[in-house]
Amino acid sequence: MSETATTAAELEAILAAAATAAQQWGQRPAADRAAALVAVADALDAAAQELIPIAEAETNLPPARLSGELKRTTFQLRLFAELLHDGGYQDVRIDHADEAWPMGARPDIRRVLEPLGPVVVFAASNFPFAFSVAGGDTCSALAAACSVVLKVHSGHPRLSAAVGRVAAEALEGAGAPSGILQLVYGTQAGRDALLDPRIKAGAFTGSIPGGRALFDLANSRPEPIPFYGELGSVNPVFVTEAAATARGPEIVSAFVQSYTMGAGQFCTKPGILLVPTGSTMVAELAAASRPAPAKLLNERIQSGYTEALQALLMHDAVAPLGGTVDTLAFPPAPALNVTTAQALLEDPAGLIVECFGPSALVATYQEESELLAVAGVLDGQLTATIQGEDSDAIAPELVRVLAGKAGRVLWNQWPTGVSVTYAQQHGGPYPATTAPTSTSVGTAGITRFLRPVAYQGLPAHLLPAALRDGNPLGVPQRINGVTS
Amino acid sequence: MSETATTAAELEAILAAAATAAQQWGQRPAADRAAALVAVADALDAAAQELIPIAEAETNLPPARLSGELKRTTFQLRLFAELLHDGGYQDVRIDHADEAWPMGARPDIRRVLEPLGPVVVFAASNFPFAFSVAGGDTCSALAAACSVVLKVHSGHPRLSAAVGRVAAEALEGAGAPSGILQLVYGTQAGRDALLDPRIKAGAFTGSIPGGRALFDLANSRPEPIPFYGELGSVNPVFVTEAAATARGPEIVSAFVQSYTMGAGQFCTKPGILLVPTGSTMVAELAAASRPAPAKLLNERIQSGYTEALQALLMHDAVAPLGGTVDTLAFPPAPALNVTTAQALLEDPAGLIVECFGPSALVATYQEESELLAVAGVLDGQLTATIQGEDSDAIAPELVRVLAGKAGRVLWNQWPTGVSVTYAQQHGGPYPATTAPTSTSVGTAGITRFLRPVAYQGLPAHLLPAALRDGNPLGVPQRINGVTS
Repeated sequence: MSETATTAAELEAILAAAATAAQQWGQRPAADRAAALVAVADALDAAAQELIPIAEAETNLPPARLSGELKRTTFQLRLFAELLHDGGYQDVRIDHADEAWPMGARPDIRRVLEPLGPVVVFAASNFPFAFSVAGGDTCSALAAACSVVLKVHSGHPRLSAAVGRVAAEALEGAGAPSGILQLVYGTQAGRDALLDPRIKAGAFTGSIPGGRALFDLANSRPEPIPFYGELGSVNPVFVTEAAATARGPEIVSAFVQSYTMGAGQFCTKPGILLVPTGSTMVAELAAASRPAPAKLLNERIQSGYTEALQALLMHDAVAPLGGTVDTLAFPPAPALNVTTAQALLEDPAGLIVECFGPSALVATYQEESELLAVAGVLDGQLTATIQGEDSDAIAPELVRVLAGKAGRVLWNQWPTGVSVTYAQQHGGPYPATTAPTSTSVGTAGITRFLRPVAYQGLPAHLLPAALRDGNPLGVPQRINGVTS
Repeated sequence: MSETATTAAELEAILAAAATAAQQWGQRPAADRAAALVAVADALDAAAQELIPIAEAETNLPPARLSGELKRTTFQLRLFAELLHDGGYQDVRIDHADEAWPMGARPDIRRVLEPLGPVVVFAASNFPFAFSVAGGDTCSALAAACSVVLKVHSGHPRLSAAVGRVAAEALEGAGAPSGILQLVYGTQAGRDALLDPRIKAGAFTGSIPGGRALFDLANSRPEPIPFYGELGSVNPVFVTEAAATARGPEIVSAFVQSYTMGAGQFCTKPGILLVPTGSTMVAELAAASRPAPAKLLNERIQSGYTEALQALLMHDAVAPLGGTVDTLAFPPAPALNVTTAQALLEDPAGLIVECFGPSALVATYQEESELLAVAGVLDGQLTATIQGEDSDAIAPELVRVLAGKAGRVLWNQWPTGVSVTYAQQHGGPYPATTAPTSTSVGTAGITRFLRPVAYQGLPAHLLPAALRDGNPLGVPQRINGVTS
């Protein structure tokens, strides 16, 4: 596998192998797939000493962060293996034939979720392990019994090749068909793969323009396919008056830690902090110590950051907070700017925008009602956070409005550090994602790569095992509307 | 509410009311929504004597069929009310904070499915009750706590107005906000509604060109939204050699009944029947008695049917079966044409096409392996049917290939007459639908209008009741990965 752009001939062979692999993989028991995911996790853990230095060299990320991310990645693979053993992800429904069904006799119908087929996953730049070759999308798709054509991110091609080799060997060693996970390099190969009729879904983590272009491409196909893009988010934080009074310094310190974590290169970075005008928080924010400058992931991220920051500073309603902001500094020092909630309301498109890197915008409000007004003008978000007190009268309404805008609403916590759990939701209305009904983190993410199939009147030997009477696989079954 | 085209000013008022109604409806307990659905069902049943004659006059459908369809419609409303009482549709997941979570301490995260917001539903022509004003899409959306802007189908405007009035009065009588279900008339109003930023999803049942145009429109928005289109399907039937030998005459008779039912105006009409060349079935099909001619739903359906049938008869590989086919007959007599499986393989795009009306294409095969080959070239289907014997060696592979192409696979049954149940699946890969991961019939259809929201670290009084400890609503909860 080369790290140069994949040619059309190479891509054709990859797609043909992906189609064959999906067909074979889909017929294997879930327990086999679970074992294969664990094998990948074990192999990646075993290769940590080889992989982390490559990642460090390609991404400027420190080793401690990278080893934590690798741990997250392998944990995720093992958690999805557990999900496969449980079997509930298949949403098995069995309706027995019923002559007395009120709308008229009903036949025997049994429904299960089955794999979509080969999928294309576009890797992200900012998580070279957890949202890349063996990351969340790949893990979900493999668990769902799809094969994966992985478009390598140009920011870490050598690491991608190494992870791809380790993962593919582990998969093959665990009995998965060859072609179950293959890499492609280059924008053109990624686009061509997404347009190929053998591909049945796409997944992406990255920028709004990049994700929207691929979403449009997926929908332009003669057969449009689901496209799960996780794009951009500002992740606003709303500090109530009572919270500012009770915990101002603590909130300031935790906020600075959250927005500068990983040099601000997280899709859940809190990009806007709303604080009361009269509180001491503004002065505390100006004075707060910030971590040392850190190199961004790559030159493209650096130049994008510089441009976004310059555009923001050109805005009449924006001023630096706590020292001038050198937009050309390399590596960039964490930057804070200040504006007002009224300015956000007057120009949401100009001010409530993602700036990928170590900067945030502090917005002061006169009245708490402005918090509700700002919440109301938000575009879709991955997260929205309230720093409040239990006695806050505004909280119920603010939670309600924010739940209509964001996939995850936090209370007195911080959005960075997205745990992989059963209840996690990493998604939201556009532009947070292109698929507001799904998540790209957490066990519910497997559903993205599954489609329901109902079987009517089939004899037991022709039914998928999960749908048979007597429940030979021991999976959760909803029988006649009631979960057993 | 007028039956003339909705003006821009009227539409603005309707959309504003829909947005307000969705906000209010979303805050009401599920039990209130259930009561409102039952009230609509009761009111429609009570108005049957008024409604059915209007439907008969507008659609040419016979009263018995229409009263059966109304029964289906009101049963569906009551079944979704049960679903709301059960609460499992919310997919509640509660992860308690866990310091020992292997990837690192995790916070308290609780996830629930919440309504998308106001939606536009485009009514179908062929089910003036069950896929129209108070049909499956409306029922699913209202159950999900969305408000509905219903684009009336031009084929039955008076019935739509009457059903809309009965349903809206029942909803209001049950305490639902006004604006929860409103009608719009005319293509332009439907398109404008779909493009309005207050609308958060679309649903449609109809033709491939019409549905694709609306799907493209929904995706062209600055904020693209989910669009659930149920478009076209050929619903092929595969008769094995053994089945033809054992039950040829029985299959012929049931097939004729299925493809001519409702004058062939069902999206699950079996449009292609594959039979062995050597069997007596071809002669039996030619000789089978067919029902009397029946008027189609309206002139547009009649002219579309005529054109599709003429195009098919122009094909070199197609000939009439059992008498000449008068493509201009009004009303049309049920038509059968014949071709070969080889012809289907050589020109799938020309021959495996939906012809909406009382016609079907019989295709003869020499070898059973041709069944697999034809299954392999199919586009996405709502259904695929096998007429086989338990001993058929080809059956397992044929089921597997068809499950990859169709949302529902049937064995020795017929695809028409789609029961509303917990396990029903009415969907499939494009062009059967624009959303292969969803269904438009059955209780799983509610998921189309819901999006997940996670709450992290919220105190009990700020959490939705379904997510609270102690489970005050008694809904199914998955706690730390295990369903209680």
